[in-house]
Amino acid sequence: MSFDHPVIAIVGAGAVGGYYGGRLAQHGHDVHFLLRGDYEAVRRNGLTVQSCDGDFRIPAGAVRAYDEPRRMPTADLVIVALKSTNNDQLDPLVRPLLKDDTAVLTLQNGLGNEDRLAELFGAGRVLGGMAFVCINRVGPGVIRHTDHGIIRIGEFADPSRRDRVDRIAVMFNASRVRCEVLDDLRFGRWQKLLWNIPFNGLGAALDLTTDRLVGSDEGLALVRQLMEEVRAAARADGVELPAELVDININNTLSMGPYKSSMQVDRQHGRAMEVEAILGEPLRRARSGGASTPILAALYRAAVVVDAGLQARGSARHL
Amino acid sequence: MSFDHPVIAIVGAGAVGGYYGGRLAQHGHDVHFLLRGDYEAVRRNGLTVQSCDGDFRIPAGAVRAYDEPRRMPTADLVIVALKSTNNDQLDPLVRPLLKDDTAVLTLQNGLGNEDRLAELFGAGRVLGGMAFVCINRVGPGVIRHTDHGIIRIGEFADPSRRDRVDRIAVMFNASRVRCEVLDDLRFGRWQKLLWNIPFNGLGAALDLTTDRLVGSDEGLALVRQLMEEVRAAARADGVELPAELVDININNTLSMGPYKSSMQVDRQHGRAMEVEAILGEPLRRARSGGASTPILAALYRAAVVVDAGLQARGSARHL
Repeated sequence: MSFDHPVIAIVGAGAVGGYYGGRLAQHGHDVHFLLRGDYEAVRRNGLTVQSCDGDFRIPAGAVRAYDEPRRMPTADLVIVALKSTNNDQLDPLVRPLLKDDTAVLTLQNGLGNEDRLAELFGAGRVLGGMAFVCINRVGPGVIRHTDHGIIRIGEFADPSRRDRVDRIAVMFNASRVRCEVLDDLRFGRWQKLLWNIPFNGLGAALDLTTDRLVGSDEGLALVRQLMEEVRAAARADGVELPAELVDININNTLSMGPYKSSMQVDRQHGRAMEVEAILGEPLRRARSGGASTPILAALYRAAVVVDAGLQARGSARHL
Repeated sequence: MSFDHPVIAIVGAGAVGGYYGGRLAQHGHDVHFLLRGDYEAVRRNGLTVQSCDGDFRIPAGAVRAYDEPRRMPTADLVIVALKSTNNDQLDPLVRPLLKDDTAVLTLQNGLGNEDRLAELFGAGRVLGGMAFVCINRVGPGVIRHTDHGIIRIGEFADPSRRDRVDRIAVMFNASRVRCEVLDDLRFGRWQKLLWNIPFNGLGAALDLTTDRLVGSDEGLALVRQLMEEVRAAARADGVELPAELVDININNTLSMGPYKSSMQVDRQHGRAMEVEAILGEPLRRARSGGASTPILAALYRAAVVVDAGLQARGSARHL
């Protein structure tokens, strides 16, 4: 991976890909966006970002947008921001972008995305990251960023290897994106799941915002029970989440006010929910590690049933 | 309880009370309706029933409607068709209607209604029944009955005592209401809960119709798991539900097509759901009998949280 003038490909330029790729492009990097639904709009009008950290625009003449990976140059860094429900398209979308030393960073939600990329393209290429950001696509080629924005990234196969991930972090930090390097990506993933499983999972299954889930004794008891099961699942996967993270997450959520998780938003818009990445894969790891997680198992089943009825499935709007 | 010319009081003349009380009045019985929300409409326009078993009307001049139990005559038979969420009003609504030998028959959903009546008015008075009926209030004083209609009733305290319950059954059967006598009311209650807990409970918590719950392997697995927990809860309460009832209920539900349970309808209309009668009391009996029912416990908590956010609480529309 060359870092003098790296070629960067963004696969899945929805809100997350558009925002982080847009920041890199805004700061002079050579960024190529692979789009589907918004391709024509971005070609015509460029990419517009309304951001709490400063609005910006990549004009139509300057944006490098594509609707077909074979027309793109091979990249030094591929950033995967595809919705994880479209992971069956990773091979055709990412493979044409690869050369020998291309690094692949997934900013997708949940568990199992790095594993899938490693399986397809070799573990040595893979980095993972989590975006802590409130962001929405508000129209074709228009993204609204309302809060937060930090990303935490780490190497997947060899956490001791720091040069590559450090250089990517420097690049983001120089592009108005706060970026921290994780010593232990798996710990980071499970730490985020401790919030995502109750609040995305339960919030979507019951169609309730976060304030409702933490607004009563019964809701808190259910959230705590699920969080303890997530800790047991993480332990079965080799990650020890400290007990105090439960209270920290609950207190943060209490202070957030009504918040609609991405999975609840997907349910309400009739779009595929990220059930496998956020619930299914954690459950499978709990099971193969011998953890007992009955509520997580029931929640997974419930979410599969809810998801099975959603209308506008597929990738068109999410790539 | 006199049965030559019994005075019958209907407490809670919503759809169920209005329909069954209306059938008795239509067939010449002396029926007195205690209403709240629909009192003025019924006084003015009478009670209208559009029924798959034959439409009928009790005209304004003939209907005996009240909005205050103290103005009603004492009754030989009180039929309680109040929504169980309003059980805190049983004492003021029912007590004024009682004389020494008044029988009280509850047609309410779920578990615990007979116990509450027994506690308040003495177990010897109490009978319980289940209405298997598709029925809706479609306007003030207007009820639409679309399917089924059988009621199954039994003595609460002394199942061997048959004279009273047999005479009530004869009265219903002579009034175009099919009525069967249960030898074991508790068995009947648990048998109905085997359906109600997954389909009312889960259907309301997830906001899904019955076809969605039985329409996938994951949904069926979740429904089966809950039904096995209901069997364990029933066993802890002294009732053995045969294993084959699980498949029978699932197959019946598969043949029903999309069906919205009463609890899901309540959720969608922002009305209080019968969480305690359908989920809470069964769970408490499981616990006090030492049964392990983790999914039922989680479902109860989830339903409490959903219910806590519903808007139009209270009794006005349901009495």
